[in-house]
Amino acid sequence: MLPADGSLLRIFVGESDKYQKQPLYEWIVTQARAQGLAGATVLRGLMGFGANTRVIHTFKIERLSEDLPMVIELVDTAEKLETFLAFVEQHIHSGLLATMEKVQVRFYRGNTSTGPKPSPQ
Amino acid sequence: MLPADGSLLRIFVGESDKYQKQPLYEWIVTQARAQGLAGATVLRGLMGFGANTRVIHTFKIERLSEDLPMVIELVDTAEKLETFLAFVEQHIHSGLLATMEKVQVRFYRGNTSTGPKPSPQ
Amino acid sequence: MLPADGSLLRIFVGESDKYQKQPLYEWIVTQARAQGLAGATVLRGLMGFGANTRVIHTFKIERLSEDLPMVIELVDTAEKLETFLAFVEQHIHSGLLATMEKVQVRFYRGNTSTGPKPSPQ
Repeated sequence: MLPADGSLLRIFVGESDKYQKQPLYEWIVTQARAQGLAGATVLRGLMGFGANTRVIHTFKIERLSEDLPMVIELVDTAEKLETFLAFVEQHIHSGLLATMEKVQVRFYRGNTSTGPKPSPQ
Repeated sequence: MLPADGSLLRIFVGESDKYQKQPLYEWIVTQARAQGLAGATVLRGLMGFGANTRVIHTFKIERLSEDLPMVIELVDTAEKLETFLAFVEQHIHSGLLATMEKVQVRFYRGNTSTGPKPSPQ
Repeated sequence: MLPADGSLLRIFVGESDKYQKQPLYEWIVTQARAQGLAGATVLRGLMGFGANTRVIHTFKIERLSEDLPMVIELVDTAEKLETFLAFVEQHIHSGLLATMEKVQVRFYRGNTSTGPKPSPQ
């Protein structure tokens, strides 16, 4: 179980941002997994603007390939997230907007039979 | 109107997690509604990993039925959210990752004619 | 670059809320852009309830036009976000739920060649 005092790191990228020929958000989640962070969730926005563009991007049926804003949410201790963010910054030097905030973390893992489903690992 | 000092509770589940034969996120929102919480929003991630799995789940057109990560965001007072989380924990014993954080809440309800639309209730 | 001490403002609206004949979330993002806020992201929920309705709205294939919950996330200094929220409140008087919280902001803009893509502006 994570300690109660944790942090939430949110990294804002564009859907079409690439790093090493893969989507940047995929690369970030893969690295977060490799470094053993507690949780990662990628959310896609319908509309937005940010660090990398001042144009407002909007999801419209006729323009599916727009560069929509993405938010990657990472949960762990402040220390692990700071280390992770420093790692990301070594690779990505522009176009990033990130926020870090303190949160109380409740983390329940286990293989008790009362949970919503068995853990697959 | 809610007091200014509120909290945000975020519960991370998998899209295919079930409780009492319904999606777990649906059960949580229904319970939140029944307990009169101020607001609930369910967001679906495109990709992620978390408490219940160390596999990275990704949304791909060819695999619509993946177990995508979901975030349920609940807003109310810290006290009501703690009570709600304790209630959820009585039912769900594993696979949950939750964060709680303090936020300033601005809540405007009413039936003034100047709002964006009339309240349906 | 933004100062390290920033804030995150989250405004919860319904997908079908309108202001001046356009979707309310579009109007908010457009105004945020016009006022030079650092970042805005609109997320659409699959399900939820909130300030404007006590009915739970759910995304179902057969009911694409449901009034789904939307979250607009805005990042900047607390001062700029307070000014922006006051501006929004002058126009929208009901049906809004908003939260404000302090976050550490890391903002990288620039045109270095090492970023994930060139800035389009």
